[in-house]
Amino acid sequence: MKITKPTFLINEAVCRKNISRMASKAQKNGLQFRPHFKTHQSAEIGEWFRQSGIKKITVSSVSMARYFADNGWDDIFIAFPVNTLEIEQINELAGSIKLYLAVESEAAVGYLSQNLKYKTGVYLKIDTGYHRTGIAADDFSEVEKILKKIKNATNLKITGFFTHAGHSYDVKGKDELLKVHNDSLQILVTLKRRFTKEYPGITVSIGDTPSSSLANDFTGADELRPGNFVFYDVMQYYLGACTPEDIAVATACPVVAKHKERNEIVIYGGAVHHSLDSVTDTKNRKIYGLVVKMTKNGWSKPLSDTYVSSLSQEHGIIKAPDDVFNNINTGDIVGILPVHSCLTANLAKEYFTIDGYLIKKL
Amino acid sequence: MKITKPTFLINEAVCRKNISRMASKAQKNGLQFRPHFKTHQSAEIGEWFRQSGIKKITVSSVSMARYFADNGWDDIFIAFPVNTLEIEQINELAGSIKLYLAVESEAAVGYLSQNLKYKTGVYLKIDTGYHRTGIAADDFSEVEKILKKIKNATNLKITGFFTHAGHSYDVKGKDELLKVHNDSLQILVTLKRRFTKEYPGITVSIGDTPSSSLANDFTGADELRPGNFVFYDVMQYYLGACTPEDIAVATACPVVAKHKERNEIVIYGGAVHHSLDSVTDTKNRKIYGLVVKMTKNGWSKPLSDTYVSSLSQEHGIIKAPDDVFNNINTGDIVGILPVHSCLTANLAKEYFTIDGYLIKKL
Repeated sequence: MKITKPTFLINEAVCRKNISRMASKAQKNGLQFRPHFKTHQSAEIGEWFRQSGIKKITVSSVSMARYFADNGWDDIFIAFPVNTLEIEQINELAGSIKLYLAVESEAAVGYLSQNLKYKTGVYLKIDTGYHRTGIAADDFSEVEKILKKIKNATNLKITGFFTHAGHSYDVKGKDELLKVHNDSLQILVTLKRRFTKEYPGITVSIGDTPSSSLANDFTGADELRPGNFVFYDVMQYYLGACTPEDIAVATACPVVAKHKERNEIVIYGGAVHHSLDSVTDTKNRKIYGLVVKMTKNGWSKPLSDTYVSSLSQEHGIIKAPDDVFNNINTGDIVGILPVHSCLTANLAKEYFTIDGYLIKKL
Repeated sequence: MKITKPTFLINEAVCRKNISRMASKAQKNGLQFRPHFKTHQSAEIGEWFRQSGIKKITVSSVSMARYFADNGWDDIFIAFPVNTLEIEQINELAGSIKLYLAVESEAAVGYLSQNLKYKTGVYLKIDTGYHRTGIAADDFSEVEKILKKIKNATNLKITGFFTHAGHSYDVKGKDELLKVHNDSLQILVTLKRRFTKEYPGITVSIGDTPSSSLANDFTGADELRPGNFVFYDVMQYYLGACTPEDIAVATACPVVAKHKERNEIVIYGGAVHHSLDSVTDTKNRKIYGLVVKMTKNGWSKPLSDTYVSSLSQEHGIIKAPDDVFNNINTGDIVGILPVHSCLTANLAKEYFTIDGYLIKKL
């Protein structure tokens, strides 16, 4: 495969290992595994999951649900506050597959009870501390009001409480992260215990990638929904949720210029290829990607003290120590490990395996 | 037009006004206008430029040059350090249109002199203080070495010195910005004066959008290459380079949830729709977009004190004061003015005019 411009590469073996590791973990812990497909958005990578025995999936939009339904998936949870403007497309899906929707207000439940043509499962979004969406976990009266409204709707069925403990990304160290995981899970378990008798069928669904990767105690949970782990990335590596060897994707980028006076290497590969997500390292430097050397079978470990320090639309700037700087030349290809693989993968029009095999995506 | 999911909208009248205003300004100042097409990346919007008399354009990649060449543009400058790995595609272009390349090292010139099949114009990238790419403006010996190498190559012709004064984005206020513009321009004019006798044909090419919008003195410049002005955005508005009424694009997004306890409105519209670029406002708040109400003929002015405060993959969170919060409901569509329209437009798979007319893009 001759790479001449920024190219999103997947190491299939690493990717498959990430899938089977998480699938085994879910199984070992007696959890239903419903991986989030928003990270890869690819029917072909979906098949790798299917080969690991996965039959149920999570997505974050109606369009994504449509795409995967068209590719043979018939048990899909749209884990995003239901967008009532897409009721027509939702009804089409609900009529042909096992569809699950997310609600977090009486208004949404009211709308669905009036407009959904087929009996559909709904998950109630619970805010366990991330404060992005969901009903405050301690607002029992609100939770109960919504549960009652679901129970009274003949076309709705309560499926579970679900949360995304996104505050697990803001912690310092594994202990803090496990505390977020345990607290968040405990909140859902308590809620389930409180309401399960009057509203049977409630399951507990969790699943950010850091917690799913690092935690070993999932007592009380029924379902696991991580997504990012399929590729992992520099953010997960910095959080301790994976090793650099677990990162299954890199963007191959041509080197177009070098600036010795500031030890900077300019690559063709900018914000439109990597996205602008960043992490701050222990030296308080803002990092937009780590740098690897391309090898025959993939890529090297991250090059020591070498990182993408800034991005504009098509340019990327790499800061490198002397020994690295002197070994990379204009016309070379370097690999960039993404800070946030979901956003980087989304920007790619297509993927390639390291053997040059094209992988289509949404 | 029935909008049901995040949709990138263009107000064609505003967009055309932005084009003709900048075209007139270039003409009035005796400058060749070579607008950058990386912002819109659309053949159809290119036609709006053509209708304003524009015949020469700038792009930032070989792929973009190919796309516009296929759509009838025959005078294209790729203002990006030449990516020698794409020499085959470059030769195809050089054989069929008037192509200009960007160089900033002896190595690049050496490569082109050996591998370019057709006589091609080259611009020398000069770093006037932004420190992204280019030869340091005071490194006269390096500039001369490269000029000499170009002169000695039978297939190369020096076209000009060009710069992108990207540090114009980091200033505080119009005075500082004009200083960046004037200093940067002066540096190129001085260089031209120094070398023009021995190396005839050197022009001076400038053109970041803030400077092009705000400056009125372009003495010594020959060519203007701004791109962002076609759409403008919140960043340009905060820099004083445009008014909110000049912003020609907005992403229409469905409202999916509301959280009264924190005056937050959740929209379907996240990092994959807006990009993660942000500005910091005078109250030191990080802003990912301003919010407008959709109207029959476009959209309102930005809603007072209302802004996108955070983004995840598909979610956007809007912070709004009571009166705004109470007037926006689940199921409504709100418009988000982009912080950086180049990146937001790049994320869109297609555009629509406010009349619902589809505009294709690269």
